[in-house]
Amino acid sequence: MAQKPSIPKGTRDFSPEEVNRRNYIISTIKKQFQHFGFQPIETPSFENSSTLMGKYGEEGDRLIFKILNSGDFLSKVKDDLYAEKDSLKITSKISEKALRYDLTVPFARYVVQHQNEVEFPFKRYQIQPVWRADRPQKGRFREFYQCDADVVGSDSLWQEVEFVQLYDSVFTALKLSGVTIKLNNRKILSGFAEVIGESDKLIDFTIALDKLDKIGKDGVIKEMKEKGIAEAAIEKIDPIFELNGDFSAKINGLKSILFTSEIGKKGIEELEFIQRAIAEMPLKTATLDLDVTLARGLNYYTGAIFEISAPEGVKMGSIGGGGRYDDLTGIFGLKNMSGIGISFGLDRIYLVLEELDLFPEAVEENTKIIFINFGEKEALYAMKAVRALRGAGINAEVYPDSAKMKKQMTHANRRNIPFVVLAGTQEIEAEQYTIKHMASGEQETISLDKIIEKLR
Amino acid sequence: MAQKPSIPKGTRDFSPEEVNRRNYIISTIKKQFQHFGFQPIETPSFENSSTLMGKYGEEGDRLIFKILNSGDFLSKVKDDLYAEKDSLKITSKISEKALRYDLTVPFARYVVQHQNEVEFPFKRYQIQPVWRADRPQKGRFREFYQCDADVVGSDSLWQEVEFVQLYDSVFTALKLSGVTIKLNNRKILSGFAEVIGESDKLIDFTIALDKLDKIGKDGVIKEMKEKGIAEAAIEKIDPIFELNGDFSAKINGLKSILFTSEIGKKGIEELEFIQRAIAEMPLKTATLDLDVTLARGLNYYTGAIFEISAPEGVKMGSIGGGGRYDDLTGIFGLKNMSGIGISFGLDRIYLVLEELDLFPEAVEENTKIIFINFGEKEALYAMKAVRALRGAGINAEVYPDSAKMKKQMTHANRRNIPFVVLAGTQEIEAEQYTIKHMASGEQETISLDKIIEKLR
Repeated sequence: MAQKPSIPKGTRDFSPEEVNRRNYIISTIKKQFQHFGFQPIETPSFENSSTLMGKYGEEGDRLIFKILNSGDFLSKVKDDLYAEKDSLKITSKISEKALRYDLTVPFARYVVQHQNEVEFPFKRYQIQPVWRADRPQKGRFREFYQCDADVVGSDSLWQEVEFVQLYDSVFTALKLSGVTIKLNNRKILSGFAEVIGESDKLIDFTIALDKLDKIGKDGVIKEMKEKGIAEAAIEKIDPIFELNGDFSAKINGLKSILFTSEIGKKGIEELEFIQRAIAEMPLKTATLDLDVTLARGLNYYTGAIFEISAPEGVKMGSIGGGGRYDDLTGIFGLKNMSGIGISFGLDRIYLVLEELDLFPEAVEENTKIIFINFGEKEALYAMKAVRALRGAGINAEVYPDSAKMKKQMTHANRRNIPFVVLAGTQEIEAEQYTIKHMASGEQETISLDKIIEKLR
Repeated sequence: MAQKPSIPKGTRDFSPEEVNRRNYIISTIKKQFQHFGFQPIETPSFENSSTLMGKYGEEGDRLIFKILNSGDFLSKVKDDLYAEKDSLKITSKISEKALRYDLTVPFARYVVQHQNEVEFPFKRYQIQPVWRADRPQKGRFREFYQCDADVVGSDSLWQEVEFVQLYDSVFTALKLSGVTIKLNNRKILSGFAEVIGESDKLIDFTIALDKLDKIGKDGVIKEMKEKGIAEAAIEKIDPIFELNGDFSAKINGLKSILFTSEIGKKGIEELEFIQRAIAEMPLKTATLDLDVTLARGLNYYTGAIFEISAPEGVKMGSIGGGGRYDDLTGIFGLKNMSGIGISFGLDRIYLVLEELDLFPEAVEENTKIIFINFGEKEALYAMKAVRALRGAGINAEVYPDSAKMKKQMTHANRRNIPFVVLAGTQEIEAEQYTIKHMASGEQETISLDKIIEKLR
């Protein structure tokens, strides 16, 4: 009995048009990665579970796809454990591998494993799918690509400057103007917690603050109270909500808030370095902004924090983000390796470009010309021409069957092939080809050389 | 405590050099696919288990990687089944998804699922990883790429001709000469079985015959006997072993063996069509050969069968293969869709190109020029130049830290960056750059425009 075919929820098939458009974005990003000196690596789709588990928090552990051991996997489970029928406890006994959850942990693992072959500072990029057993919803999938660039082995602030430039270069190349590169620094957040006397509640504090644009000032204050942050402390942070104006104005505001905090002042210094460099080398299309509420939930950021907002008017969350982490490879035993990295959200960038109609027409690597098949002799004549066209780098085809003319023309039409060639006995005798431009309907009878000239 | 990082057996990390070389092969193949009118699709890494299971035989089912259900997966297992502790029986209760095993079954599923959007004949290519829980060994991995091109919806023999040309075009573009495209036809094999009166043992017969180059004539005969093929029948096939000479000579031999078999004669006709067409449009670098023992184990081939041998002298199994299958989408409910497809073995082609030293030097998308970092002022001067270089499409970097000169030069050397720029106070004042060619040691002090001119 025939099965009704479908794919797992949260996954997608990509049609030729979608693949071509995705590849357009990927190759644009890749080219800029290379211009900036990043080199590609690839890591396996699945890692040993021990490499991934415990790296993304409890929630992350749940969302990691586990691969069932091969063969008689239950034979390794002891009877008393088996009798408990406890999914959580049994998992590590019947599954030793898991699908990649992001590209950062595999990158850290790669650097540590290959530390003797890698030349530091190591600038790598990686564009591969990742998998998360998340509840699927609009714009959130269980399989999606990440496009990451990271540098490990240097704590120079020029890297931060470089990543701001890199973001700007990619979005400029994609002709996507109006993007905002939001910048913050973990040291600013630590400074805030310090001046209000709640350094031990830094995480709760930043998580609440990060929600400002979603839940508003009152919501943030309510959440802070719930987390046990003192009333008096909350009153002290009021100036944070009053920061506004341009980058420099916000920096001045920060200076008056953080003047008693060493770490806060260090954060300001770092932000100013980046601001100064970008002022000397202005961005082409993006805008650099300071957003002191930015935390990105991820606790491993220790310095700069980046987040990219789509142009105003496009309803879309962040289309990229990243930051500096001082001790990522530490979990695999290689200490004191400062890293900084950014990520591009392929799926969301795709939706933005689609909404703004920014995909170039030439993205489609479509067939340029198809020859009508009138029978064996004519098909051979066409095949010979097609062979020469392909040799000249032109995508060309012969319709495979000598089907009815109308069927063949409809096929060319449906596939948006711009030129159709009709070559029968007369053309063969004259060594010519009648070429028809589908859009205009115009046709002419010319030599193969002329066709190549026309299409190149 | 730090973990010692490693990756699962049968999987690989790819270094920048390896990624670049793999991408060189992939993009060469892709370009030819496009020249021949194939369009890309992509399918999810995991499919519903029901899509994959039962499509590759019992052995295949075992080798499919299954993904454990999320959450409390054991709660769905009934107690009496659970009590049996039978891995095989429990699998389908705790796992509903599985990793792609090849690209052909997902392609068939795609065609059926999207039959209303797809324009037939549909020529698609797909280059994605697949996973098999096979015992890893040299050249055999648990994660590897397949590069497939298939046409579905036409039984025209021109497709066979096209695929022979496509193979030739790809290997020509890779500058890999000496490749043999071995051709056979399932109808020839059916014809053999028919003339010896063992049509019901066709599969056993072809599996044995396929091993001729491994176990020799005596081995083949021994295996046929073991499979219950009659002595008298085996005597009749002796002429098969005597077929030799060029394509035409073998065709003549076949004609005298198969003259009583309708299906055998049909097979000869098909082979001759292909041979005639290729004679009219000679291959550029590959050789087309007839190999009547070729079966490729896969029972779904119904017409042409292809297999590619590496150049003589290179120890390597087949580097590609494929064939025609008349009823692939039937398993998903879409009948009468003839398909034909071929595959390129990326990993093996990589090894062959490496052994023959055929990777072009320019494969490496490496950084072309790096600026030494002498401190903040000099770094800014360098960054501005680098920005212009990147804008001109040149991969350029500034060393991120103002480390010791020797360290920075060593870094440039280790990364094989061909040019290093030294720009200190003097150069800044003169708006010049001292550029050093690392291989020759030559250096000159020139303007930025001159550098761009030099590197473009």
